[in-house]
Amino acid sequence: MAARMSQLKVKTLRQDPADAVVPSHRWLVRGGYIRRVAPGVYSWLPLGLKVLAKLEAIARQEMDQIGAQEVRFPALLPREPYEATGRWDEYGPNLFRLRDRTGADYLLGPTHEEMFTLLVKDLYSSYKDLPLILYQIQTKYRDEARPRAGILRGREFVMKDSYSFDLDEAGLGAAYEAHRQAYSRVCRRLGLEHVIVQAQSGAMGGSRSEEFLVLSPHGEDSFVRSPGGYAANVEAVRTPVPPPGQTAGLPQPEAIMTPGAGTIDALVTTVNRLRPDQPPQTAADTLKNVVLMLTHPDGRREPLIIGLPGDREIDPRRLEAALHPDWATPFEEADFAAWPALVKGYIGPVRLTPEGLTAVLGTAGQSRVRYLLDPRVVPGTVWTSGANVLDQHLVNLVCGRDFTADGVIDVAEVRDGDPAPDGSGPLQLARGVELGHIFQLGRKYAEALGLKVLDQQGQLRTVTMGSYGLGLSRALALVAESHCDQRGLVWPRAVAPYDVILVSAGRGQEIAAAAESLAAELSALGLEVVWDDREVSPGVKFADAELLGFPTIVIVGRGLAQGLVEVRDRASGQRWEVALADAAAQVVRLARDEVVD
Amino acid sequence: MAARMSQLKVKTLRQDPADAVVPSHRWLVRGGYIRRVAPGVYSWLPLGLKVLAKLEAIARQEMDQIGAQEVRFPALLPREPYEATGRWDEYGPNLFRLRDRTGADYLLGPTHEEMFTLLVKDLYSSYKDLPLILYQIQTKYRDEARPRAGILRGREFVMKDSYSFDLDEAGLGAAYEAHRQAYSRVCRRLGLEHVIVQAQSGAMGGSRSEEFLVLSPHGEDSFVRSPGGYAANVEAVRTPVPPPGQTAGLPQPEAIMTPGAGTIDALVTTVNRLRPDQPPQTAADTLKNVVLMLTHPDGRREPLIIGLPGDREIDPRRLEAALHPDWATPFEEADFAAWPALVKGYIGPVRLTPEGLTAVLGTAGQSRVRYLLDPRVVPGTVWTSGANVLDQHLVNLVCGRDFTADGVIDVAEVRDGDPAPDGSGPLQLARGVELGHIFQLGRKYAEALGLKVLDQQGQLRTVTMGSYGLGLSRALALVAESHCDQRGLVWPRAVAPYDVILVSAGRGQEIAAAAESLAAELSALGLEVVWDDREVSPGVKFADAELLGFPTIVIVGRGLAQGLVEVRDRASGQRWEVALADAAAQVVRLARDEVVD
Repeated sequence: MAARMSQLKVKTLRQDPADAVVPSHRWLVRGGYIRRVAPGVYSWLPLGLKVLAKLEAIARQEMDQIGAQEVRFPALLPREPYEATGRWDEYGPNLFRLRDRTGADYLLGPTHEEMFTLLVKDLYSSYKDLPLILYQIQTKYRDEARPRAGILRGREFVMKDSYSFDLDEAGLGAAYEAHRQAYSRVCRRLGLEHVIVQAQSGAMGGSRSEEFLVLSPHGEDSFVRSPGGYAANVEAVRTPVPPPGQTAGLPQPEAIMTPGAGTIDALVTTVNRLRPDQPPQTAADTLKNVVLMLTHPDGRREPLIIGLPGDREIDPRRLEAALHPDWATPFEEADFAAWPALVKGYIGPVRLTPEGLTAVLGTAGQSRVRYLLDPRVVPGTVWTSGANVLDQHLVNLVCGRDFTADGVIDVAEVRDGDPAPDGSGPLQLARGVELGHIFQLGRKYAEALGLKVLDQQGQLRTVTMGSYGLGLSRALALVAESHCDQRGLVWPRAVAPYDVILVSAGRGQEIAAAAESLAAELSALGLEVVWDDREVSPGVKFADAELLGFPTIVIVGRGLAQGLVEVRDRASGQRWEVALADAAAQVVRLARDEVVD
Repeated sequence: MAARMSQLKVKTLRQDPADAVVPSHRWLVRGGYIRRVAPGVYSWLPLGLKVLAKLEAIARQEMDQIGAQEVRFPALLPREPYEATGRWDEYGPNLFRLRDRTGADYLLGPTHEEMFTLLVKDLYSSYKDLPLILYQIQTKYRDEARPRAGILRGREFVMKDSYSFDLDEAGLGAAYEAHRQAYSRVCRRLGLEHVIVQAQSGAMGGSRSEEFLVLSPHGEDSFVRSPGGYAANVEAVRTPVPPPGQTAGLPQPEAIMTPGAGTIDALVTTVNRLRPDQPPQTAADTLKNVVLMLTHPDGRREPLIIGLPGDREIDPRRLEAALHPDWATPFEEADFAAWPALVKGYIGPVRLTPEGLTAVLGTAGQSRVRYLLDPRVVPGTVWTSGANVLDQHLVNLVCGRDFTADGVIDVAEVRDGDPAPDGSGPLQLARGVELGHIFQLGRKYAEALGLKVLDQQGQLRTVTMGSYGLGLSRALALVAESHCDQRGLVWPRAVAPYDVILVSAGRGQEIAAAAESLAAELSALGLEVVWDDREVSPGVKFADAELLGFPTIVIVGRGLAQGLVEVRDRASGQRWEVALADAAAQVVRLARDEVVD
């Protein structure tokens, strides 16, 4: 039976929501698909729920296709398993934590590795029970620092997450590959242009992981690609390490007065002005030392200094990934007061005294502060850096000869044109949104929670696991984002809430009767039809039809006097005047042509 | 395509779970339908999820049938709307509360009146938008004091909740009646024997409410029925108030020594021994005074004394309902120490002094403690009660002459044979489980949150609302509870995870081939079939088939040599030996006969 707009009570909005920064958010709210409840927390209105149900069905089909079994875990989870794997603390402020009436600690599940591991441990005991893939479609919670863009980055969201259990690496590899292909099929069915990039495993742990990124200029994830096929998110890019150089014959360190040279630019200008006889320096010749305050999951705080070429900034997401589970905050004035060895604006690896160079940075230096260097800062490279004395810098500091550090940290920004780590050419930066993430977890969770089965030889073996997430509410936003125009949404047929919107334009009794009967005819042909029977002007109906974005628009209006109706394709904008008797056939043709997969 | 047991990896258990107190819990866990994660928090395994999906579909059909629109709200909800209606506090410890990273207060939604009210306020503004029924099928949270019986009383559970919005009482009445009938249809489709009883509105507020109780000896809800058609849960039963009697000519109070008479029984024995010339008293002649400590939602504590006939106990659920949102705890030794006017074991309304009677209980009495009386304690009734002196009681205390109270409280237990409040005969007590609860909320929420629409005359009018809950995970437990036997579950076809389990019993290649082909045939006929292809003994397969409880069991085994297979009906236990070629037809006949609705 065809639905009627007057009964659906869809309420479209003429104004953009105040907080809308991306098109999907604007159109989903204005079209009456979703509604904000709290930051990053949304309700699904009837049309949104219909789209979500279709997305869920697609995810379910593809999971069933690879032999996965569907289960559903609670969102309210006890602390203990997450304590056992360390994630209760490691998740930091991203985890919603709460206590029940007895004082017991709970969390709202952000992902369920622990719970699936325990379920399999609980139920199965033999290699005969493997391989096993379990999945769920379930509501998840993450207390994001920056919930944004409607349901693109929510704090309560719907995810398909699956978990594979195998005896050996080959089994894990097969489950991983099956998911990789299933996710590619989901993207294709949804019409989402995606890239699979190497990723950091981060909090999840494990050996190999890849992200499915959907290309989007509004994406929060940056990734790189090379002409030779390398693809990685910026967190995962490993900077190629240059070969160490000779130190013999290099000039000796020298102090220069640089009052007011608080920025790298000012420093470079001052250095070049003071040393007109030397080849001019650029920001890349300076060694910038950034002081941060680290917080460990247990609350302990400790400063960290990162030395990197002055022409590069620290990329906050690479930093976050590298430091995990610790996190960094800026070094405050009070911190400088507590570490007097660090002279703000003039921090450098060493101090030049009449007796020679003294290490300042590093756990073995005067400051005792841990010091890590960018991979480009290799022995034999020459730098200008702070002198640890107010208004002074040192030039001709040679790495390996004049200073060392506690280790390497690869967190500088990646730039267009940087070389790919695998030598496959210059990197190109682009932006995307993470739709899926697949992990070869290996034995981290199985070991922490004691998941072993008997193998063919009767020996207990720890199971190897994979975990595979696919954001479904996010997928909905991404489909909207990549399928919209200046007038509203343009749903692909695979997930459109309705195939057809039938607009009766005009007040005549004949128009209503013809529209109702055409709606019934289309509905009988298996199409999902909504008839806009509201008593509002044709202009309002046309605008709403385009805003709502169902694939086909049929207009029964003035042309009816000549026995004609208009059929429009929302995506292409094409229009056909067809005889009323042929309208249904034309609509079905359009629907068939566009059926995806 | 028929499923295979070897792939479903169903794991049945031979042992009852340690905490199983009701059959549904035992069989759902042993059959691999659900699995415990924490107290009152369960996971759905594949079979359980299939049943739940079918239940959800039935609820959805019945809601769509009455013109309701489906939406879905988040479970994570901001505090403010619940603050506005007072429920943030009133819910007390039943509410899961938490804070996000910014310190903002949230709750996990136990029910969504506030959110639906705000949505409607947000989207609609005219009488033309009404009537409106919105519903959701969603995960809810209540921090139950006594989670029990598996998913029968969980802390995370699945509920269908709907909300109606109307301009006037007639509209509300129609929406209420539509739900009443829809819920009755759901019960019928699920094969659940139910009673609709009058209920208290409690925390929900509103004028009229009824519960759908499913009869169950393990039910936590007690209800009463009369031959004349009265039905109410015990919380809602109002005790008929006897007419007041004459006080003229009644004997005067008199103190008697009752050392050691700490119980009502001992008191009655002592009184009758001391006064052999008087008509013997029973417990019903004594006025028992129970001291409680009340806690208000804001944490304030205050004692309360309830006076009731000594032959009746206070019913904790009636007490809870009557006191809501305050709650009562026992009066501790320390409390007695703080209220020295209350002499433990000898508390009574008055004290007898040489000057006459002095009120002790009541806000105007010496104790200043609020005093409420059972409705049976009307003026003119004569009582034996504590003398407020150690080892003493008073006889001949006449209500209205010798003592009064601050009011009435109707919380004494209801007994088999008590008169129905409407005069429809003696009440009969029974037990059930609340499956649904429907409320005429009226304007409580709309007023608190400012939901008004313009009426036909252009005047703003506050909307009147109803709210309607139906527990779906609980429905699953109730169906299991009322459809099981000594060997396991006996699913009604409407919600069975599979229609048929096909057991191949024996190792022959012919047996496997015949089973596989019969499974394919049944599947092609539209039945949901699982083939037990596991390499385990026929005994294990038979036991599992009965435990899992799918409606039809087909056995392909030794009879195959004679071209015969066995078809069993799980519910009736009937068995038929049929020719392999006729087996599919026989199974379809069984399935058709039993299709519900």
